[in-house]
Amino acid sequence: MINTLFLPELREMLAENNVAELREFCTALHPARTAEFMEGLSPQETWAVLRHADLALKEEIFLYFGHDRQIAIIEGEDRSEVAELLADLPADDRVDLLHDVAPDVVEEILPLLPLHERREIIRLRAYEEDTAGSMMTTECAMLSESLSVRDALAELTRVAEHLETIHYIYVVDKDVHLRGVVSSRRLVTALCKPDQKLADVMDTDLVFVNAMDHRDEVTSRVAKYDLSAIPVVDDQRRLIGIITHDDVIDAVRQEATEDAQRIAGVAPLDEGYLQTGLVELWWKRGVWLTILFVTAMFTASALRAYEVKLSQWSWLVMFIPLIMSSGGNSGNQSATLIITALAAGNVRLRDWKLILWRELRVGLMLGGVLAVLGLGISFILTMGEKGTSDQTLWPLVIPITVLLVVTCGAVTGSLLPLLFKRLGLDPSLMSNPFVAAISDILAIVIYMTVSVLLLRPTS
Amino acid sequence: MINTLFLPELREMLAENNVAELREFCTALHPARTAEFMEGLSPQETWAVLRHADLALKEEIFLYFGHDRQIAIIEGEDRSEVAELLADLPADDRVDLLHDVAPDVVEEILPLLPLHERREIIRLRAYEEDTAGSMMTTECAMLSESLSVRDALAELTRVAEHLETIHYIYVVDKDVHLRGVVSSRRLVTALCKPDQKLADVMDTDLVFVNAMDHRDEVTSRVAKYDLSAIPVVDDQRRLIGIITHDDVIDAVRQEATEDAQRIAGVAPLDEGYLQTGLVELWWKRGVWLTILFVTAMFTASALRAYEVKLSQWSWLVMFIPLIMSSGGNSGNQSATLIITALAAGNVRLRDWKLILWRELRVGLMLGGVLAVLGLGISFILTMGEKGTSDQTLWPLVIPITVLLVVTCGAVTGSLLPLLFKRLGLDPSLMSNPFVAAISDILAIVIYMTVSVLLLRPTS
Repeated sequence: MINTLFLPELREMLAENNVAELREFCTALHPARTAEFMEGLSPQETWAVLRHADLALKEEIFLYFGHDRQIAIIEGEDRSEVAELLADLPADDRVDLLHDVAPDVVEEILPLLPLHERREIIRLRAYEEDTAGSMMTTECAMLSESLSVRDALAELTRVAEHLETIHYIYVVDKDVHLRGVVSSRRLVTALCKPDQKLADVMDTDLVFVNAMDHRDEVTSRVAKYDLSAIPVVDDQRRLIGIITHDDVIDAVRQEATEDAQRIAGVAPLDEGYLQTGLVELWWKRGVWLTILFVTAMFTASALRAYEVKLSQWSWLVMFIPLIMSSGGNSGNQSATLIITALAAGNVRLRDWKLILWRELRVGLMLGGVLAVLGLGISFILTMGEKGTSDQTLWPLVIPITVLLVVTCGAVTGSLLPLLFKRLGLDPSLMSNPFVAAISDILAIVIYMTVSVLLLRPTS
Repeated sequence: MINTLFLPELREMLAENNVAELREFCTALHPARTAEFMEGLSPQETWAVLRHADLALKEEIFLYFGHDRQIAIIEGEDRSEVAELLADLPADDRVDLLHDVAPDVVEEILPLLPLHERREIIRLRAYEEDTAGSMMTTECAMLSESLSVRDALAELTRVAEHLETIHYIYVVDKDVHLRGVVSSRRLVTALCKPDQKLADVMDTDLVFVNAMDHRDEVTSRVAKYDLSAIPVVDDQRRLIGIITHDDVIDAVRQEATEDAQRIAGVAPLDEGYLQTGLVELWWKRGVWLTILFVTAMFTASALRAYEVKLSQWSWLVMFIPLIMSSGGNSGNQSATLIITALAAGNVRLRDWKLILWRELRVGLMLGGVLAVLGLGISFILTMGEKGTSDQTLWPLVIPITVLLVVTCGAVTGSLLPLLFKRLGLDPSLMSNPFVAAISDILAIVIYMTVSVLLLRPTS
């Protein structure tokens, strides 16, 4: 819901050009809330309000706007004002933004930026999306190993204002090679002996990523070592930036979203759902949907082979969907459980025998319950049906089939992600519809086999 | 994979009781790596190695062990040694651990802990799982608002060693009411005027959670305000702890796992997959599986109504699985896209018309492709089939059905999560199998209606 609480007043202040009140509005609240209260305004109105905040605050509020609004402001407002704002934004956010701004606008803005910032932008834009380099900010607390603790603090006092975080202070040699790290906690503790060199208090067993590493590498390393920021180095182990906790949390969420989309057989979207074009959406869904459609043809061929049997006992047809969906749902559950367990590190490839044995038993337990229900259902639904066989064994067909199909679904669903992983593929890759496709064929074959065995023609 | 690099040497050192080398092993690496190298050892051997580290390091390495190993050590090793370790662990980790330790062992250990720690444990255990209170640590940087910046730094120097982080310093009044927050960056910057009071440099527009708030509230607020830690207060707004970035990242991952499980129709597991008992697994999957089985009965009843038609054109039967799975997969994709978009905040309830219109068009585009494929398939598979109607319209049945079913699947799949959300339910709740169940029935009804319209008996 858009927060409309302040909208009329804001518009009134704008109409009256009430500088004092507009300034008061910008400074009174947490920047995130200020941004929230402006959601109902147009990008032009938003910028007109923001003009009354000083640069640092303007920047903070701007960063809390939605992506579309940020782009609209950059593309639509006065180029020199926008350039002033951009020059001050954290380097990583700036690059992300400019990536989506119309190229001709970027060309107009770039020359208005200070030389240093301009070079920075061109350098960071060179990193591919989803690499550590594209996630990092270049502004980090970086101090020389020869400084004393006292001088380090003095230096920090001077530069801290321009940094995103000083949670970790990175210690470098004269060629900016990363040598060690000092947490702000450690630095403050070390103040009791202010003449120690940074080299003496720093931690040298470093955890870092290369700028070319994939985003997944960043999130798994940060989570494993419980870091709040991770340094990024180039191939010569020179410190070139850091990735901070907020970008890591965003990345973890992004990964979860992409996994969920892959599980459902959608190639991960680059943008939000509403921002993705129809043709892209069609393509990213269509590829897998088509592959699955083709695999479903095998199910059709399998059924075709039993056409004669099915025409003998026509009541068998009505249970086809019931049996297929039971197997599919059971497989779906198992696949998701194994995929999430693999992602969380709870399960490894070598556990496959254990998993097989568990799923076999759980599958039988689940199938058992459904078989009992199936017995009741087939009694009711087959009443008054005709077929060319002795009717005493009829009610057993559905329960036995359901028991076997649910168990096979559970086993298939659990083994498929493990197989994908063994083959070096992403376990979450379209496993859900793929499991469904396999368990569909299995379901049909099992169903027809059980029927043929139990329903011998009386003739 | 277990890292076996050091295992033989470690075992040899243990056999020789080589104190110097064991101590060297404990201190040489990052605690996370030390823990990794010990993965191949038994819990007894692990503890025998750890004995050679001093308490602070022992604690750090211990925290990187897997949960099962931690529990085995607490339950199996000397009670007083374990109590010494536990007394030093961060309060939140300690409570999580003791939650899973056998109750009689906890009863034996508790009296060995210092009174203050014992009270702390009993207090934290009172918070329900998945509340902010159960995630927080009580050790946070908390200073009085009347301190000067200089004195604040001196005080921090004294206590920082015992804290998990000093990224934020929380400013409280004499009754420990939370009044403001100072980032370590801000404090360091303020050192240029060391006589300012904390009250003058602190930020008073605070973002915090109540101890009783749900975990989701914590993660969404931390992500929204880009925090690296969030303070936890009681009902009187007294500061009682903080939740740090590492616990937030864990919680975000946990949420993603639970969402994925709910999407697949599994009630979220409390433990890892392999740690969950068979009966619990059976129950958590069985409930939804049974409900879905019962809803699938409607599909069976729907099919029953068309039994006579199906016996007239028996080739229709073999396409039932193909058509059902196309609708199910399409619905599955849409549901997942909308659920992930809702979770990421890209889509809101009021966008429902926009979503409906998009899905209608994408559904037709996807259905169009599959319809063309379906035309080819039905030509091939119906060759030589017999039926009681003019054969010219036969090849059109499958394409038209597929087009309609895929479109209906996309629309149903996208609207169902929105409906769940509107009803105040979790949008991810079993949406996947539920969408499949609805689209199954729709598929059958559409298929039979199209067949009846196109295949008029010749008699």
